[in-house]
Amino acid sequence: MSEAVEKILANYEGENPGVIGNLRRMLNHGTLGGTGKMVILPVDQGIEHGPGRTFGPNPAGYDPGYHPMLATEAGCNAYAAPLGFIEAIARQYAGTLPLILKVNNSDSLADVGGFQSALTSQVRDAVRLGCSAIGFTIYPGSKFRNVMYQQIRDLIAEARQAGLPTVMWAYARGNMDKDAETAVDVIAYAAHTACQLGAHVVKVKPPTAHLAREDARKVYESIPTETLADRIRHVKQAAFDGRRIVIFSGGAAKDTDSVLEDIRQIHAGGGDGSIMGRNAFQRPLPEAKALLASVMAIYKG
Amino acid sequence: MSEAVEKILANYEGENPGVIGNLRRMLNHGTLGGTGKMVILPVDQGIEHGPGRTFGPNPAGYDPGYHPMLATEAGCNAYAAPLGFIEAIARQYAGTLPLILKVNNSDSLADVGGFQSALTSQVRDAVRLGCSAIGFTIYPGSKFRNVMYQQIRDLIAEARQAGLPTVMWAYARGNMDKDAETAVDVIAYAAHTACQLGAHVVKVKPPTAHLAREDARKVYESIPTETLADRIRHVKQAAFDGRRIVIFSGGAAKDTDSVLEDIRQIHAGGGDGSIMGRNAFQRPLPEAKALLASVMAIYKG
Amino acid sequence: MSEAVEKILANYEGENPGVIGNLRRMLNHGTLGGTGKMVILPVDQGIEHGPGRTFGPNPAGYDPGYHPMLATEAGCNAYAAPLGFIEAIARQYAGTLPLILKVNNSDSLADVGGFQSALTSQVRDAVRLGCSAIGFTIYPGSKFRNVMYQQIRDLIAEARQAGLPTVMWAYARGNMDKDAETAVDVIAYAAHTACQLGAHVVKVKPPTAHLAREDARKVYESIPTETLADRIRHVKQAAFDGRRIVIFSGGAAKDTDSVLEDIRQIHAGGGDGSIMGRNAFQRPLPEAKALLASVMAIYKG
Amino acid sequence: MSEAVEKILANYEGENPGVIGNLRRMLNHGTLGGTGKMVILPVDQGIEHGPGRTFGPNPAGYDPGYHPMLATEAGCNAYAAPLGFIEAIARQYAGTLPLILKVNNSDSLADVGGFQSALTSQVRDAVRLGCSAIGFTIYPGSKFRNVMYQQIRDLIAEARQAGLPTVMWAYARGNMDKDAETAVDVIAYAAHTACQLGAHVVKVKPPTAHLAREDARKVYESIPTETLADRIRHVKQAAFDGRRIVIFSGGAAKDTDSVLEDIRQIHAGGGDGSIMGRNAFQRPLPEAKALLASVMAIYKG
Amino acid sequence: MSEAVEKILANYEGENPGVIGNLRRMLNHGTLGGTGKMVILPVDQGIEHGPGRTFGPNPAGYDPGYHPMLATEAGCNAYAAPLGFIEAIARQYAGTLPLILKVNNSDSLADVGGFQSALTSQVRDAVRLGCSAIGFTIYPGSKFRNVMYQQIRDLIAEARQAGLPTVMWAYARGNMDKDAETAVDVIAYAAHTACQLGAHVVKVKPPTAHLAREDARKVYESIPTETLADRIRHVKQAAFDGRRIVIFSGGAAKDTDSVLEDIRQIHAGGGDGSIMGRNAFQRPLPEAKALLASVMAIYKG
Repeated sequence: MSEAVEKILANYEGENPGVIGNLRRMLNHGTLGGTGKMVILPVDQGIEHGPGRTFGPNPAGYDPGYHPMLATEAGCNAYAAPLGFIEAIARQYAGTLPLILKVNNSDSLADVGGFQSALTSQVRDAVRLGCSAIGFTIYPGSKFRNVMYQQIRDLIAEARQAGLPTVMWAYARGNMDKDAETAVDVIAYAAHTACQLGAHVVKVKPPTAHLAREDARKVYESIPTETLADRIRHVKQAAFDGRRIVIFSGGAAKDTDSVLEDIRQIHAGGGDGSIMGRNAFQRPLPEAKALLASVMAIYKG
Repeated sequence: MSEAVEKILANYEGENPGVIGNLRRMLNHGTLGGTGKMVILPVDQGIEHGPGRTFGPNPAGYDPGYHPMLATEAGCNAYAAPLGFIEAIARQYAGTLPLILKVNNSDSLADVGGFQSALTSQVRDAVRLGCSAIGFTIYPGSKFRNVMYQQIRDLIAEARQAGLPTVMWAYARGNMDKDAETAVDVIAYAAHTACQLGAHVVKVKPPTAHLAREDARKVYESIPTETLADRIRHVKQAAFDGRRIVIFSGGAAKDTDSVLEDIRQIHAGGGDGSIMGRNAFQRPLPEAKALLASVMAIYKG
Repeated sequence: MSEAVEKILANYEGENPGVIGNLRRMLNHGTLGGTGKMVILPVDQGIEHGPGRTFGPNPAGYDPGYHPMLATEAGCNAYAAPLGFIEAIARQYAGTLPLILKVNNSDSLADVGGFQSALTSQVRDAVRLGCSAIGFTIYPGSKFRNVMYQQIRDLIAEARQAGLPTVMWAYARGNMDKDAETAVDVIAYAAHTACQLGAHVVKVKPPTAHLAREDARKVYESIPTETLADRIRHVKQAAFDGRRIVIFSGGAAKDTDSVLEDIRQIHAGGGDGSIMGRNAFQRPLPEAKALLASVMAIYKG
Repeated sequence: MSEAVEKILANYEGENPGVIGNLRRMLNHGTLGGTGKMVILPVDQGIEHGPGRTFGPNPAGYDPGYHPMLATEAGCNAYAAPLGFIEAIARQYAGTLPLILKVNNSDSLADVGGFQSALTSQVRDAVRLGCSAIGFTIYPGSKFRNVMYQQIRDLIAEARQAGLPTVMWAYARGNMDKDAETAVDVIAYAAHTACQLGAHVVKVKPPTAHLAREDARKVYESIPTETLADRIRHVKQAAFDGRRIVIFSGGAAKDTDSVLEDIRQIHAGGGDGSIMGRNAFQRPLPEAKALLASVMAIYKG
Repeated sequence: MSEAVEKILANYEGENPGVIGNLRRMLNHGTLGGTGKMVILPVDQGIEHGPGRTFGPNPAGYDPGYHPMLATEAGCNAYAAPLGFIEAIARQYAGTLPLILKVNNSDSLADVGGFQSALTSQVRDAVRLGCSAIGFTIYPGSKFRNVMYQQIRDLIAEARQAGLPTVMWAYARGNMDKDAETAVDVIAYAAHTACQLGAHVVKVKPPTAHLAREDARKVYESIPTETLADRIRHVKQAAFDGRRIVIFSGGAAKDTDSVLEDIRQIHAGGGDGSIMGRNAFQRPLPEAKALLASVMAIYKG
């Protein structure tokens, strides 16, 4: 029984024991198990960006068996992927590695006239495949907001009845310019929105110091946003004063020092962890494991 | 990844990954995790025999929190109990200790005119409480056979859809005298029946050398049944030539040496483990833990 | 926020906030609100025993409006009745007085061949009438056990989904003589059974010192059962070591001193309160209110 | 495309193509594939008679993998078994060996007060396991007739919607003496009843020359029933003048010559094949294969 | 039991035996049965391009009976068509020739404002007609992506419950120019997308050496794409490192040498087979059979 984990779970006190059990399972798994911090390996970039761009840099990643092996050996808390990748490995990994089924996905081939992922799998897929959570992407800012929010409204309810928590990817996109997508006020807004929609775990990008919304400019004068740590702190504050788990993505693959500096700031700001895909699986296995070990060492503090 | 466990799971090759995941979870949990052997703590005797008789010898057991604590500290693979006891502790234990919800139960107050347990909880209770399996008692030999088998037929199917395996308690009772209930031919028959009904884990009593069925007498001349180990071996054979997990109860509380001698024989005969209730929770905590440790040491071989 | 109430509710930690909210509503209502004790006014005797026998002694009670008025003026925590009585007053009292809909009931006209109440209303009746709980009677010991337990299994689940807790009347009857019905071992067994079936509040009769079950005699040598307080203490112990709310009926109308002496013992033994019907509504209003005031004064300690 | 098979299938002209396809599959499979004759291996005796009696004579049969291997190597048209045995091998054999899921089963431990099998699996089990048919036992003559016939009424309809035909075991039992169970008039009656209930394939015992029903005595004076071939001819006549497939069991294991003589008569009388369990799997593998080869040779004519 | 087939099926290890059985059935049928390679005859061009254009060149093809006869005589693994064509022949072919019901279809008459096929039949049609799989076309790149992916998400789940695998036609179309539709990066992307959506068998066009996506240009510098064999190899890699069956269409009818050269390259690149429509059924029967024989000879290696 980890005190750090139980303290976090106390924030979800109205939730049923099935959902709590799966959150606990993820929080207690892997190298960071019991610390209250999480590092999740997500591999949905094959469909999101195309297989060549995604797995070309490290062709071992074309194999759906590669990623849960990496997640296991690197000691990640969980592995997240779309239906096909989970189906290919669930028989082998269910019950040993917490699996998160991404139930919606976008791709780069289509232009659907705005930002909205396609529903690509069902809650009952997550159940039959022995998953510990569903994952869902929202695009706060998209003109398709109402469709997306209604979808996740229904999926969260169905997942709860199956004892599954929801991890929500919240990417601000649509009614804003590129800089706004990672502006600290917008990231905070996206994180808060995800929490209000009922997400158990929220995933956002690390916020920049940019302020995107004129109407928020004044109030941000008194909110420290200079360092990434400051901004992470503010995002956590927006996530119900820290009562919801917020983890941060690393974005496109980059050099190790940059990655680790980000992690140090996320940790300093009270972030709950990272979701690290391309920076992990696009490196050769030993490098990926070394990087993830360094990341986890920082979160262990 | 335990080879012993994966070898067992290979026998359930048509099953969905959700069910496999929960079987794997139970087989990989606790002191015997990864050995392919299981020791389960069951506490349904409060309703089956009455609370005074059950918890009087060790009043700590009146507290529903006592048993999962004992199961955890003693390193059991799972804890099985009726709805009320599971509800009282699921928030705290889901995701750390595999829980088995007994979905039917009998009691000693009523005489329902034959042997048939009452349905006392639902598969969706098991799901919302974060359980890893459902438990169900059949009484092969009961005149209510058809009702019971239809109930478990439907419950197994519903549990499967929720990713939950079924642990089946198979107690021969009804159309036979007392000695027959534990006769080796009858126990083997009960175990085989449970397997044919689709049980993932079967629980029977240790068989005696008695032969109850006249029509089987001849064939048993060539089946060794002298020692308990011999008889366990035959029961495992009847359980699909060892392809199904069969665990054995200890029955009423008795002295430690008798318990351990039984376990040695069960182990020698290839039994997959024990389900040990009163012999565990009716002893004071240190003694219970010591006994369970000795039992597990034997199974570890 | 009452500490006493919250401490009790902590025992229902896996339950959803809707159910918790209604339990809290009852525990915080009336004179005993916030003390953790409850006095409930039940009026199902009209159907159970016939209207003349029930309301003749105080004809004001024929009026369904009389009882919620009495419950309100006397400061009861809740009022329990069958469908008709609740329908007659729900428009007026929903939202001010916690209402408990008895969803099954027996009567004295029919002999159904054993002990089993008739289902007389639905969970959705309780919802449309603004009730705070459903009430259900089980008869542990009845040969109709399996039917009853399956009924309440399904009703509790349905009530939970509607945010309603279940108050369970547990009267041992059937496979036993009259003395056994209130024997301390049997009452403890009945209370434990109700808890295992998932009851949120259990209602039993005050137990006598009689021991009914031969198989339990030995263990009861070391359980104090001399005074009613002792026996109440044991019943609470059987109710998950005190983790479930257990309230006691008063039975047939009797003199005030006897009633109050029982209450003092119940209170001394740690009982959570009383359900007091005929002793209340068969008295003239001022006397009824005076008696209930005295009872509540004792529980207030 | 086998003419013999298509001629048989023309008798089921109102049936949907899914059901026809699975009948065709069974008729075209194995050594007798395309001849219009069938030999099915049924292994439900483990639950019907007990595992020791059933598999003791050839212990290889305890292994659920043994029987489909035998059915395959011996060139049987299909393999029939209860849920557990099918689950254990469906992953490996679905799509290569036609599987028949016995959805009800009896056992020898219980006395349920008459002749009625228990429902032990569902049509959706047959579907998920890739079966080609369901199997169901009726006991014409049983006082539980109405329950059984309603069950199979519903199961046939559900199976049809899943594209599955129904093989019906029709054993006359109950309201008659032992001799009557295999009397030619009774067997003909049982076969006709199964056809009227909608069975696609009927399985009965070889009829004796005994006449059981006084009311039929007169008419049977003009029906030849002297030889088994005569009687088989009459049973086929009773089965819609030969328009339904009727196969015959062999009963308890017996010597090869007796078995083969029966088969010759069945063939001579126009029987459509055999269902041969104990006579096959209780022999050592080479003998079993040799016997089945001889049987099939007779049917090939 | 074919080793080649079982090795392929092992890649679908979480799937239920019903789905596996139908995959196995298709892989074991026809001339290529047991080789692990497939040649499927698809005839949906009547609705897709109009009957005159489709069947004019060989008017025998107007007859729905022509195609399954061709598929059978040529030894194809399966025959795929829309509802009407399947309904016309299912009674005759179910159980002998694996049938694939195309459950969506486009046509050339309508302009629905983008690329999206119409749902034209149901999973339960496939079941009642005795089919072995459903077929579904996605258009990665279409602005109707979200509708299509949600449709197939639900249809795959429903088909699985009926024991049916899904063959997915993946044609990149929409947000791209004509050359891009068959560009190697786009075909790989389409194949990967189909796999992630849960397709059991993926059908794409043979990729050209063209690169369509600027963002993928860099990574393709190190991926060999010169020969068709190279590109096939890459597409198979994108299909879960070869763990999913990928078959290739031939496109418009062309001369035999071109067809066979393509097949040689597909075979050399590790493609799992072909789906060959117009190149087969638009030729006179003897030529079609000769061509298909040549194709199969290449795949046999």
